[in-house]
Order: sequence, then C-alpha cells, then structure tokens
Amino acid sequence: MFQNDLAEVQERLVDLSESVNDIMEKASEAFLNCDLKKAEEAIALSEINEERALAIDELAIRILSKESPAARDLRVLVAALRISASLERMGALAGHIATIARFRYPESAVPASLHNTFSEMGALDCALGKRLTELLRNTDVDLARTIQSEDARVDELHRSVFDLVLSPDWKEDAIHTVDVTLASRYHERFADHVVDISEKVAYLTTGEWAELEE
Amino acid sequence: MFQNDLAEVQERLVDLSESVNDIMEKASEAFLNCDLKKAEEAIALSEINEERALAIDELAIRILSKESPAARDLRVLVAALRISASLERMGALAGHIATIARFRYPESAVPASLHNTFSEMGALDCALGKRLTELLRNTDVDLARTIQSEDARVDELHRSVFDLVLSPDWKEDAIHTVDVTLASRYHERFADHVVDISEKVAYLTTGEWAELEE
Repeated sequence: MFQNDLAEVQERLVDLSESVNDIMEKASEAFLNCDLKKAEEAIALSEINEERALAIDELAIRILSKESPAARDLRVLVAALRISASLERMGALAGHIATIARFRYPESAVPASLHNTFSEMGALDCALGKRLTELLRNTDVDLARTIQSEDARVDELHRSVFDLVLSPDWKEDAIHTVDVTLASRYHERFADHVVDISEKVAYLTTGEWAELEE
Repeated sequence: MFQNDLAEVQERLVDLSESVNDIMEKASEAFLNCDLKKAEEAIALSEINEERALAIDELAIRILSKESPAARDLRVLVAALRISASLERMGALAGHIATIARFRYPESAVPASLHNTFSEMGALDCALGKRLTELLRNTDVDLARTIQSEDARVDELHRSVFDLVLSPDWKEDAIHTVDVTLASRYHERFADHVVDISEKVAYLTTGEWAELEE
C-alpha cells in the first residue's frame, strides 16, 4: 500500500515536470520569436502549475499522516516536497520569461546581438527540463551528472550576457538592458533548480551527497 | 516530549530569521553607502545561512521519524521545512545585494536618482524581516496582515524603479541599469518570501488560507 502511495507521488512529480517543460518551451519560443499566442499559453499554464505543485504537497502530507514511514521513505517524501517547490518555481520563472515577451510585443525583447545566446540558453533549459523528467522517472544517477555539466554551460551563457551588456559594444537602450538582464537571470535560475532537484534525487539514490556537490 | 521538539524547531526558525535580518541590514547598508566591509560581512554570513537552514530540515526529519505526529503537528513540521527553505533564499538574496555592492566598490551601484527609492526599499525589507521574526516567535495573525500591506509598498517601489529606468529621464549607463534591475528584483523577492512565510504561519494558526490570499 505504502509503495503505491510513493509511486503516485513520483508519477505526479513526473507529470508536473512535463508540464513545466511545456511552459518553458512555449516561453522560450515566445521570447525568441515574439510569439504572443505562445506567451499567453505559457502564462496561463504557469498559473495552473502552482496549484498542481500544492496538490502534490497535500498528497505527501496525507501519506505522512496516514502511514508512519520509515527513515528512508520519509526522506523520499520530504525530498518530494522540496522537488515540488522547485518545480513550482521553475514554472513561475518560465512564466516570467513569457511575460517579458508579451510585454514587449509586437517588438522583440531580444536584441539581434543576443539572439544566438538566448536561443542556446532556451534550448539548454528545455533539454535540462527533459532530462529532469527522465531522472524523476527512472532515478538514473548518471543523468544527474550530465545535468550538472549542462548547467555549467547555462552559467557561462548567463555570464556572457553580462559581459556583452557591460562592454562598450552594447548599444541597446535601457528597455533591452532590463529585459535581457532579467531574462538571463530567469534562465539561469531555471537551470539551477534542475541541478538542485538532480542533487536531491542522486542523494536519495546513492547517499553520496558530498560527492555531487562542488 | 514532542512539544519540546516542536518548540526547538520554532526557536531555530526564529534564530535563522534573526540571522537573515542581520545579513539584510548589512547588505542594505553596503549597497546604499558603498561599504565594502559590510558587504563582505553580509556575504560571509549568507554562506553560513544555507547550512543553518539545512540543519533545521534535518531536525524536522529526525522528529518526523522518531515520532508519528498527528495531522496538525505534521502540518507544522512540513510548514517548518518550507519556512526554512524561504529563509535560506532570503539570506541568499540579501547576499546577492551585498555582492553587487562589492562588485562596484569603490563606486556606488546606486545612482543618485534612485538612492531614496532603494533606501526605502531596504528599510522596508529590514522592517519586514523583523516583523517576520516576531511572527515566528508569537504567531500573531494581525502581524501577518501588516506584513502583507508593507509588501504592497515594496512592490510599488519595485515598479517605480522600472518606471524610471524605462523613462526618457534615465541617463545612466548599462552597468547601473543592470545593477538596479537586479537589486530591485532581489529586494522584491526578499519581501515576497516574508509574505509567503506569513501566509503559512497564518494558515497554521487560523486555517483561513483563502482569506489571506488575494
């Protein structure tokens, strides 16, 4: 019975993670291609996302109160609470990216000089999101390591946005400066959450917390 | 015995909240007055803050595994996990504000035209932090309501930063634009976390979740 409960929590985390990827894909397209429809879809989905995350928390609490899980299962449930909180934030961050796109429409929020950078960052966030779904589904620790190396590239791109914005080559106005500063931060935080979750999953699977932390 | 455990969790959340306020006070002074020493103190404290938050989580998990708390106590413990996660983020956000100050030192990260705005925002964040400590100590629901109205003022100031930055009056360079964009966002998120925590405390105290949400 209890194993069924845990399986249900896991399944719902996988579903939530898929829906977060959906938001990020739409948000990234909206942001890169000034697509108003995709922006609105992403924003609407990000609003539902919060409730879905809370519903998983309620389920975890119900299981905790119904059963008295042993130490390991308890850790899994507590990790599930933290993972759902991260997935909730990831949906909100993707929603913020879509909001920037909607706000600037019909103009683009992305200046030409940063199109490639944001295109790569968006693609990486989407790829990281998909790996995260896989990881939640099959708790494959090798996947957790791949996630961490991909996040390093997102950090690099994030820094490169600031390098450009703060260089003499940057000729854009304050609106673009604000947009790219925030959008870059949102992309970076999204990837950070994927790493946080992957560390929790790796920890639950191997107990090797320290080894995965840098 | 169990009530003692809960009291210990509460006491450690109060301590953590006080240490977060300390970081925010130092960060805010560092940011407003280009005070390198305060910036470094804030950054050092924010690094310890994360470990202290994790230690509270470990305590909550130990209690959960040792006892089999009834529904209400279980909710308190789960809320404690979420509160410690928010306090951890608040410490990190205050640390980011200090990092901006350190990065720009000996120049100021705050242009003259926004000094008053950031001064008020910083003071509000510090005041909200103190109210939060009080709230965690005595779970006074009226305090939760005050917190929510003060947060509204932080949001207003946050919007006013963008209004200025995106207006024709804004003559600062990209460095200042980036700095104030991020710093304003960090101040706003700090206050958001105070509101999130106050809603959780109010919920635990009254059960009136819906009433407090707007």
